[in-house]
Amino acid sequence: MVFFASMQLSFREVSRPTLLVDVDKARQNIFHMARKAQRNGIRFRPHFKTPQSAMASLWYRDAGVEHITVSSLDMAAYFLEAGWTDILVAFPVNLRTANQINALASRCKLGLILESVETARHLEAQLLHPCDLWLEVDCGHGRTGLPIENEQSILQVSRELSMFRNLNFKGLITHAGHSYQARGLSEIQALHTTVKTRLIALKQRLKASGLDGLQLSYGDTPTCSGCEDFDGIDEIRPGNFVFYDWMQVEIGSCKPADVAAVVACPVVTTYPEQGKAVIHGGAVHLSKDMLKDTEGRPFFGMVGLPAEGGWTAPLPGCKVVSLSQEHGVVQLSKEVMQVLRPGDLLMVYPVHSCLTADLMGSWLGTDGLKYTMMPRP
Amino acid sequence: MVFFASMQLSFREVSRPTLLVDVDKARQNIFHMARKAQRNGIRFRPHFKTPQSAMASLWYRDAGVEHITVSSLDMAAYFLEAGWTDILVAFPVNLRTANQINALASRCKLGLILESVETARHLEAQLLHPCDLWLEVDCGHGRTGLPIENEQSILQVSRELSMFRNLNFKGLITHAGHSYQARGLSEIQALHTTVKTRLIALKQRLKASGLDGLQLSYGDTPTCSGCEDFDGIDEIRPGNFVFYDWMQVEIGSCKPADVAAVVACPVVTTYPEQGKAVIHGGAVHLSKDMLKDTEGRPFFGMVGLPAEGGWTAPLPGCKVVSLSQEHGVVQLSKEVMQVLRPGDLLMVYPVHSCLTADLMGSWLGTDGLKYTMMPRP
Repeated sequence: MVFFASMQLSFREVSRPTLLVDVDKARQNIFHMARKAQRNGIRFRPHFKTPQSAMASLWYRDAGVEHITVSSLDMAAYFLEAGWTDILVAFPVNLRTANQINALASRCKLGLILESVETARHLEAQLLHPCDLWLEVDCGHGRTGLPIENEQSILQVSRELSMFRNLNFKGLITHAGHSYQARGLSEIQALHTTVKTRLIALKQRLKASGLDGLQLSYGDTPTCSGCEDFDGIDEIRPGNFVFYDWMQVEIGSCKPADVAAVVACPVVTTYPEQGKAVIHGGAVHLSKDMLKDTEGRPFFGMVGLPAEGGWTAPLPGCKVVSLSQEHGVVQLSKEVMQVLRPGDLLMVYPVHSCLTADLMGSWLGTDGLKYTMMPRP
Repeated sequence: MVFFASMQLSFREVSRPTLLVDVDKARQNIFHMARKAQRNGIRFRPHFKTPQSAMASLWYRDAGVEHITVSSLDMAAYFLEAGWTDILVAFPVNLRTANQINALASRCKLGLILESVETARHLEAQLLHPCDLWLEVDCGHGRTGLPIENEQSILQVSRELSMFRNLNFKGLITHAGHSYQARGLSEIQALHTTVKTRLIALKQRLKASGLDGLQLSYGDTPTCSGCEDFDGIDEIRPGNFVFYDWMQVEIGSCKPADVAAVVACPVVTTYPEQGKAVIHGGAVHLSKDMLKDTEGRPFFGMVGLPAEGGWTAPLPGCKVVSLSQEHGVVQLSKEVMQVLRPGDLLMVYPVHSCLTADLMGSWLGTDGLKYTMMPRP
C-alpha cells in the first residue's frame, strides 16, 4: 500500500519537529463541508489561513470550491498566483495598503470588509479598480464590526456604502468568534440559531428600508461543523475545519478522529520517575495557545504515538504541559513511559492548528508530498 | 541626520506589521554584556536564538564575540554559513540527528549537551568527528538536566563522560530558567547567588574526586543583566538581552528604555466610546506569550506611538488586550484615543521578543537596513 509505505518512510526521515497531515482526513473534512454548503444551496468560501498552501488548495478545487477567504493581502497575492480569482480578505481594510489593493483588484475579484463610511471614503479616493465591499457586523464576538443591535447605524452606513462607485456593496459579514467559548453541540447550536435569526431579521429590515439584494456572509468552524441549517445565509467561511485540532474537539466541532494534523516530535530525554519526557517541539513549533485541563492546569497539546499507517489517537494521561522556545515537556502515562526511549517520536495533536501550521511553514502529507506554505512576507 | 531620515522613510513604508529594531540600543545592550563578561574574565557565548540573523551577528563580532550559542542544529548550520566556527547547541542531543551533527562537527567546533551516559554511548557510536560535550545540570528550573542535589549521579556520569573518544567532556551546563519567575533585582540577585554558589561547590567536589579542569557554563538574561559577580563561572550564555522585552522589564532585568524592538502595527478601526482600537498585528506576529496586569488580566504587549527619530516609551493605560490570528485589540487611554485615526501606526512593545522575532522572520533597523533572519527549515 502506497499510503503505508510513504508514512513509514516519512517517520524514518523525521529528525526535527515536523507537521504531518493525514491527507485523506483533510480532504474528507473539506468534502463534508462542501456537501453541507451544497445541501443548503449556499456559497462555500473556505478560509485559507489554516493550510496557507497552494498545493493544498487543489484539495478544495477538487471539492468544487471557487471562492476563497484569506486573512491578509499578502495571502491574497499568494493564492492569486496559485490561480484563485475570487478572494475575500476577511480583515478590516488597512488604509496604508491602497497600492496593494489596487494591484490585486486589477487581477481578481477582490472582496474587502470595513465598518465605517469614513474608511470607505478614504479607500474609494485611492481605488483604481472596483472591489466588492462587505459591512462588518458584530454579532456578539466583541472584536470588530458594528454591533448588530445598532440597527439604525447599520442601516445608515449601508445606505451610504451602496452609493460608492468603485465599491460594490455586497452585504453584511460577521465572524461569530464567541462560538469558540461554546462547549458541546447544544451550546454551538443555540448560538448558531440566535446569530442566524438575528442576521436574517436584520437583512429583512434593511430590505424593508429599500436596501434589497444584500447578502449575508457568516460561519466559523464550530457553527459550520456543528449545525446543519444555513437557510437564509448566502455564504459560509470556515477555515480551521480542514485540519481541526484539540480546541475544536473540546468545543465539540469534531471528534478526535477528525483531527488531520499532528506534529511529530523527537524525544530527547526521558524522566521515568517523574513520568515525563522532553521533546524537540516548543513554542516556535506549536505556538503558546493552550487549553486548561479539568483542574485548571494549562496544556499545549495531546500526545499520540506513531503507528502503522499513521499515528494513534491521543493517549489517556499524556499531554504537553509546558513549552520553552524549542523544548516541550510532556507528561506521560506509566504505560507509555515504560516503552519510550530517547530517539523515539511522539505525535502532538496541536491545541490550535492554524497557529501551529503558520509557525511550521510546511508539512508532510500522508500522500508522500511535501506541502510548502506561503512564505513569510 | 541619517538616523532620522531612514526612520521617517521606514514609517511611511510600513503597511503591514513590521518589526523595528533600534540598532543603537541593541548594540549598546551587546556592548554592556560583553564588557561585563570581560570584567569578570569569562567567556561570553551569547545565545543567537533571539536575533537569528547573520547580519545582526556582525554587531556581536564588533563587540569581540567569538563563541556563540544556538538552540537547534539548523540554527548552527545557518550561523556556520555566516562564518561562526565555535557553536554550542544548547538543546539536548537528539539521537535522530547524527548525520547533521557529523556534518557540522566536520566544519566547526561544535558543542553538545546531554545528561545520560546511554545517550552519550548512542551518540559516540555514530560520531565521525570530535565534539565538545557538556553535562546538563538542573539548578532549580525543573525542565532538563540532572538535579544539582544528586551529586553522586553527577559525579558518576561525569566520570563516564570523560572516557569517550570523540566527545571532549568540557564540564557542567545549566539554564536557570526559574529566574524568569523573579520580580525585581533583589530576587534575581538572591537566585544568582544561590545557583552560582552551588555550581562552584559542585565543581570543587568533582575536582576533589579527581575530575579536574571542568568548566561551568551558566547565565540567562535576568541573572546576566541584574548581577555583576560571575567569579568562578567560565562562560555566560544570555540571548534575549539584545532586544529585551516587556517580560524582562517586569522581571527587572532592564529598564523600558533598554527595549530595542517594537512591532509597528497599522490601526484599522477605532472605537472611541470603548477606548479601544484594532490593529493589524495578531498571534502570528506577536505570539501568544502574555503577562498579567495587576488585576490578573492577560496582556500581549505595551503600546507606544511613532515619534521623531523612533518611537515613544510605552504609554500609560495602553496595552494589547487580546489577539486573534491577524487582529490585535488595543486598550487605549483617552489622550491617545482622541488623536488616533485608522491608518496610523501603533508601536507594540512585545511581551517576549524571541518569539516575536521568530514569527516575523525579518526586521527593519533604525540604520536603514533590512535584517533577514534564518529561514524556516
